[in-house]
Amino acid sequence: MVELKHIFSPFVILTIVFEIVMMIIYGTWIEYDTEYTPGETEDPQVANTYKFYSDVAVMILIGFGYLMTFLKKYGYSAAGFTFFISCLTFQWAIVTNAFFHQVYTSFGKFAIEIPSIVEGMYATAAVLITFGAILGKTTPLQLIIVAFFEMIFYSLNIYVNIYQLKAIDVGGSMIIHAFGAFFGISLTRVLTSKLQTKSHNDSGSVYTSDIFSLIGTIWLWLYWPSFNGALAMPGAQFRAFMNTFLSLTASVLTTFFVSHILRGGKFDMVDIQNATLAGGVAVGTTADLFIYPVGALSCGVAGGLVSTLGFAYFAPKIEKFFGVQDTCGVQFLHGWPGIVGGLAGVIATKIANEHPSRYLAERSFHAFFHRGGDQPEIQLAALGITLGIAIFGGLFTGFILKLGTQNALNPFNDSEFWEVPQEFGKEPQQDSFPDPSDSKWVDYNPSDGEQMI
Amino acid sequence: MVELKHIFSPFVILTIVFEIVMMIIYGTWIEYDTEYTPGETEDPQVANTYKFYSDVAVMILIGFGYLMTFLKKYGYSAAGFTFFISCLTFQWAIVTNAFFHQVYTSFGKFAIEIPSIVEGMYATAAVLITFGAILGKTTPLQLIIVAFFEMIFYSLNIYVNIYQLKAIDVGGSMIIHAFGAFFGISLTRVLTSKLQTKSHNDSGSVYTSDIFSLIGTIWLWLYWPSFNGALAMPGAQFRAFMNTFLSLTASVLTTFFVSHILRGGKFDMVDIQNATLAGGVAVGTTADLFIYPVGALSCGVAGGLVSTLGFAYFAPKIEKFFGVQDTCGVQFLHGWPGIVGGLAGVIATKIANEHPSRYLAERSFHAFFHRGGDQPEIQLAALGITLGIAIFGGLFTGFILKLGTQNALNPFNDSEFWEVPQEFGKEPQQDSFPDPSDSKWVDYNPSDGEQMI
Amino acid sequence: MVELKHIFSPFVILTIVFEIVMMIIYGTWIEYDTEYTPGETEDPQVANTYKFYSDVAVMILIGFGYLMTFLKKYGYSAAGFTFFISCLTFQWAIVTNAFFHQVYTSFGKFAIEIPSIVEGMYATAAVLITFGAILGKTTPLQLIIVAFFEMIFYSLNIYVNIYQLKAIDVGGSMIIHAFGAFFGISLTRVLTSKLQTKSHNDSGSVYTSDIFSLIGTIWLWLYWPSFNGALAMPGAQFRAFMNTFLSLTASVLTTFFVSHILRGGKFDMVDIQNATLAGGVAVGTTADLFIYPVGALSCGVAGGLVSTLGFAYFAPKIEKFFGVQDTCGVQFLHGWPGIVGGLAGVIATKIANEHPSRYLAERSFHAFFHRGGDQPEIQLAALGITLGIAIFGGLFTGFILKLGTQNALNPFNDSEFWEVPQEFGKEPQQDSFPDPSDSKWVDYNPSDGEQMI
Repeated sequence: MVELKHIFSPFVILTIVFEIVMMIIYGTWIEYDTEYTPGETEDPQVANTYKFYSDVAVMILIGFGYLMTFLKKYGYSAAGFTFFISCLTFQWAIVTNAFFHQVYTSFGKFAIEIPSIVEGMYATAAVLITFGAILGKTTPLQLIIVAFFEMIFYSLNIYVNIYQLKAIDVGGSMIIHAFGAFFGISLTRVLTSKLQTKSHNDSGSVYTSDIFSLIGTIWLWLYWPSFNGALAMPGAQFRAFMNTFLSLTASVLTTFFVSHILRGGKFDMVDIQNATLAGGVAVGTTADLFIYPVGALSCGVAGGLVSTLGFAYFAPKIEKFFGVQDTCGVQFLHGWPGIVGGLAGVIATKIANEHPSRYLAERSFHAFFHRGGDQPEIQLAALGITLGIAIFGGLFTGFILKLGTQNALNPFNDSEFWEVPQEFGKEPQQDSFPDPSDSKWVDYNPSDGEQMI
Repeated sequence: MVELKHIFSPFVILTIVFEIVMMIIYGTWIEYDTEYTPGETEDPQVANTYKFYSDVAVMILIGFGYLMTFLKKYGYSAAGFTFFISCLTFQWAIVTNAFFHQVYTSFGKFAIEIPSIVEGMYATAAVLITFGAILGKTTPLQLIIVAFFEMIFYSLNIYVNIYQLKAIDVGGSMIIHAFGAFFGISLTRVLTSKLQTKSHNDSGSVYTSDIFSLIGTIWLWLYWPSFNGALAMPGAQFRAFMNTFLSLTASVLTTFFVSHILRGGKFDMVDIQNATLAGGVAVGTTADLFIYPVGALSCGVAGGLVSTLGFAYFAPKIEKFFGVQDTCGVQFLHGWPGIVGGLAGVIATKIANEHPSRYLAERSFHAFFHRGGDQPEIQLAALGITLGIAIFGGLFTGFILKLGTQNALNPFNDSEFWEVPQEFGKEPQQDSFPDPSDSKWVDYNPSDGEQMI
Repeated sequence: MVELKHIFSPFVILTIVFEIVMMIIYGTWIEYDTEYTPGETEDPQVANTYKFYSDVAVMILIGFGYLMTFLKKYGYSAAGFTFFISCLTFQWAIVTNAFFHQVYTSFGKFAIEIPSIVEGMYATAAVLITFGAILGKTTPLQLIIVAFFEMIFYSLNIYVNIYQLKAIDVGGSMIIHAFGAFFGISLTRVLTSKLQTKSHNDSGSVYTSDIFSLIGTIWLWLYWPSFNGALAMPGAQFRAFMNTFLSLTASVLTTFFVSHILRGGKFDMVDIQNATLAGGVAVGTTADLFIYPVGALSCGVAGGLVSTLGFAYFAPKIEKFFGVQDTCGVQFLHGWPGIVGGLAGVIATKIANEHPSRYLAERSFHAFFHRGGDQPEIQLAALGITLGIAIFGGLFTGFILKLGTQNALNPFNDSEFWEVPQEFGKEPQQDSFPDPSDSKWVDYNPSDGEQMI
C-alpha cells in the first residue's frame, strides 16, 4: 500500500528534514519571554497584541488563502498550499528574524513573544504574495525552497533598512508588499516564462469560485487596519488604524468607478477582488504618521488608480512583452501600490521635516528611529534597496529552482497533487455538455478514498 | 477601448464628485482625536473599542454581504455592492453624524476617534437593511442616492431622539433596525411596485447560494453581542453582551420549532437564515439595562416568534395587498423585531421606575441620560418618531429616485452590471438540461476578460 | 395550512418544554455577576475574556459548523443543526456546569459572567464532536436528547476530575476532546451499527463542499490558541497561546507529509481538513505548562501522526471490525490526539516534579491546583475516568435513543428535514446525466416556498 517511492519523494524528505532542524533550533536556541510580573491581572503582551496576532492570522490563512481560490480547478491547492506553506514559513521566519535581530543586538538565546509571531506572519505575507505570482505553476516541493530562500532575503532586507538605516515602514508597503511582489515577479520570469499557453484553459474563474475568492478579499480588507497597526506604538497606533481604514474606503470607491470606465460600463470581479485592497498597501509606510484624514484618503485613491489601471491595461502588455506570467496580478495589488506607499513615506517625512511641531509620530516598525533631517532620503534609499534585494532574491531563487526541480506538469489543476472527487473536472462550468468519451478527461485520477470518512 | 460614454456615465461622475467632496470636507473639517498621553502603554480608545470596531465591520461586510448572496444569480452584486455602498456610507455617515453632533454641542473642527467609526458602521447597517428591501431591483447609481439621503434622515433621527429626547437605544433596535427597515419598505413601495412578476424567476436561491448565505447569518449572530455592546458604558457593557447572547440563543430555538410547525414539518432555510437573528434586534434597546437573564430570553423568544410568523404568513399577504416587494424580508428581521425591541424598552424603563434601587443601568447610547420618571414615555415617543422619519424619508427618497433614475432592467441578475464568466446562467441549478438554442440565454454578455489574471 | 401533527410533533414539544424550563431556571436561579466597581474605565471581565468568548464562538459555529458541510447533500443540516444544537447546549450547559460548581462550593443563586459562557462553549464543543460521529444518521429530536444527557455526564466528569481531583486540562484534551469523541463513538456503535451501506452513496464529498469544509478547518486552526488559553491565568496565558500555535504549525507539516506517503503520492483533503488540527488537541492539557517551544512542536508532530494514521489506516478497519461508523472520523481528530494530550500531561507534570524550580505554571482550568507530588498520577487517573464516563455515557444515551426514537430514514440527505431547492439532488456532481425518469429522484419533495422571499 505504502510505496517506498512515496516515502523517499523529495517533498517528504525535505519536509521531514525541515521539521527536525526546526525542533533542534527551537530546542536549543528559542525560549519563552518571561516578562510577566506575578500578581498582575493581565499579561501585557496578551492584552496589547494577541488581538492583532489573531487578526493578521485571519488575513494570512483566510484572506490570502481564499483570495487565491478564484481558479476554477485549483481551489484545494490554493487554500491547502497556503495553509502548508504558511505554517512552514511561520516556523522558519521566526528563526530568520531572530537571527538578524540578534546580529543587531547581541547573540544568545532568543526569547519569543507574541510580537515575534506577528513579525513571523508579516514575513509569511511576503511569501504568500510571491506564491500569488507563481500560483498554479509550481509544485509543493518548489514552494518549500522558495519560502526557505525568500525568508533569508526578507530578514536581511529588514536588517538593512529597519535596523541599520532606521527607515519607517510600519505596515510594510516596502518591506512586505513590494518585496514579496517583486521577488515573485522576478522568480516567475525565470521559472515559468516558457509555460505553454494551453494551460490557460484552466487559469480562469467560475461564478462560485469568484464568490469564494471575494470572501478572501473582504477578510483582508476588514483586518488591514490591524495589519498596519499591530506593532505601532501607543499613541501612534490609533492613527495607524484610522488612516488605514480611510485609505481602504477610498480605494474601494476608486476601484468601482475606474473598473466601470475601463471595463466598458461593467464591473470586473478581478478588479473588485484586488484593487479594493490597494489602499491598505499604499498607506502602509505612512499609516502611523501624522498624514491627516485627507492624506489617508489620497493614498487610497492613488493606490486604487494604480492598481486598477495595472490590472486592466498593463497586465496583458507585461505578459506579452516581458514574459511575466503573474497569476494573481500581485504586482498590481502589492507591487506598484507598495511603491506608491514607499513614495508617500518620502513625501510625508519631507513635509514633516518642514513642520516639525506636528511631527509627533516618528515611530517606526521597531521604534528605532533616526531623528535627523535626512529621513526622506533614508525612505527613498530603503525603497530602492528593497526592490534591489527582492529582484535579486527572486532571480537567484528562480535559478536554483530551475536547476534542481521541475514545474507542475498540469498547471492550474488540483488533480496533479490531490485526490479529487469523481465529479472533478466534469462540472458544467467548463463545458455544458462534456462528452464522456472526450480524451481531455482521460488522465484524471478520480479518488476512490472518499467513501471512507 | 475606453469610451466617453463610460467616463461620463452618471454612476462614474457621481462617485468621483462624491469622493472629491469628501476629500474637501475631511481636509478642512475633520481631525484626529489626540487624547493619548505620552508614556501610557496603551491607547485607551484602542484597548476599549478597536475590538468592537472590527467585530461590527465583520458583521457589515461579511454578515450583511453574504447574507444577501442567497439569490442564485446575484452573488457578485450582493457582496460587491454591499462592499461599495458600505465604504461610501462609512465616509458620508461620519460626516452627517459629526454635523448633528456639532449642532448639539458647538461648531468647530470635528475630531474623529474609533467610536466615530463604530457609529459610522451603525449608520451603514441601516443603509444595508434598506438595501435588503430593494436587493436586485436597483442600480448602483440609485444606491448612492439612497445612501446619501438616508444618512441625512438617519443622523437627524439620532439628533432628535438620542441627543434631544435622551432616549435609550444602545443596540439600535429603533434607530438602526426599525429605521433601516421601514425606510426600505416605503422606498421599495414607491420605487418598484410595478416590477413585473417575470423577474421572480431569478429571485430564488440554489443549494450552494443558501450555504453561502448562512455564512452571513452566522457571522452576524456571532458578533451581535459586540454590536449591541460596543459603545455601552463600562459596568453596563457586560450586561449588553450577556443579554444579547442569551436572547440570540432563544431566538434560534424559537425559529427552529416555529419553522417546523409552519413549514409542514420541515425547516425552511429562509427562516433559519433570518429569524435566528431576531433576538439580537429585539434586545437592542434594552441590552445594557438590568433586564435579568430571563428578560433577555423573553426578548429572544418574542423576536423569533414575530419574525418567523412574518416570513411564513405575512410576507405573501403584504406583497399582494400592499404591493411591497421586500426582497430579503427586512421588515420581518429588522422592522417588526425592532418594534418589539422598542416596546421592550418602554416596559423595561417602566419596571425600573417602579424599582429604583436596581435601576443601575440608565446609560444610553451617548451617556446623555435623562434621569426623570418619564423615560417610558420618552422611549415610546422615540419609537414613533423613528418610524415617522423612516417612512417619510423612504417615500421622499423613493420619489426622488423615480423622478431621476431608472431601475435595474434585468432584475436579480448580475449580468447587467458585471462581467460574468461564460458559464453564468447555464448552471444546471436553473434547468437541468438547458437548450442551447433557448432564447432566454441569448442576451447574456459573457466576459472575455477573465483569462487575463 | 398548519397541521396539528406538526404542532404536536415530538421535536416541537421537546423544544418548547426545554425553553420553558430554561426560562424558569434562569428566572429563579441565575443572576448577573456584579463585580464592576463604578468609576473604572474598563470592565475587567470584558477586557480579559470577551475576545476569547468571541473567538471560541467562531470556532463552534463557523469552525465545527462548516467543517461538517463536507457531505454533498447534507450542508443545510450540518451547518443548521450545529446552529440549533449549539444554542440549546449553550443554555443547558451553563446550568449543568453551574449545578456542579455549586455542589463544589455552596448552593444559592449562581452568578453568570463571561467565563461561564466560555465554559458553556467548551461543553458545546464536546456535543459537536459527538455530533460529528453521528452526522447524517440521526434526527434533530435525537440530537436534543443526546445534548441533554451528554451535558450531565460532561459536567459530572469535570466535577470529578477538575474540582475534586484537581487535574490539569486547560485546553480540554481529555475533558472536552477525548470525552466528546468517545461518547460519540460508543453512542454511534449502539445506535447506527445496522445502518445499511446503501446510505453511503451520499456520505461522500464534492469539490465545492470540500472547499466549504476547509473554511471550517482554517477557522478552527486560527482560533485554537484562544480556545486553549481563554481561561488560563495571566502569566500562563501567554504560554498557552504560544505552545498551541507552535503545536498547530507542526501538525500541519506532519499531516502534509504523512498524507503524501499514505495516499500514494497525493494529498487527501480529508487529512488536511482534520489532522492539521490534531496539534491543537494534543497540546490541550499541557498548553499553559512550561513545556518549552520544542515540547509544543513535539505535541504537534505526535498529534498529526496519530491522526493521519488513524484516518488512512484504521478508519476502514474499525468500521469493519467494530461496526463503528464515525462519520467525521472524530476519534482520529479528537479521540486519539486527546489521549496523546492527556499522556503529554502525565509526562510534563512528571518532568516538572523533577525540576521544581521551573514549575511555575501549575495552574489548572479553575485555578484549583493540587500542589503535591502525585500530579502525574492524578493526570493519568483523570484520563481513565474521562474515558470511562464518556464511554458509559455514550452507551447509556445510545440505549435511551434506541428505545424511544427512530434514526434518520434517509441518511446523509437534507431533504428529510429541510425544504430544499428544486435543483437539489440533480446536481451533476452525483451523476453527470441524470435520467429524469430515474426512480431514485422521485421521492424528493421540492420546495415551492422559495419564491416568497
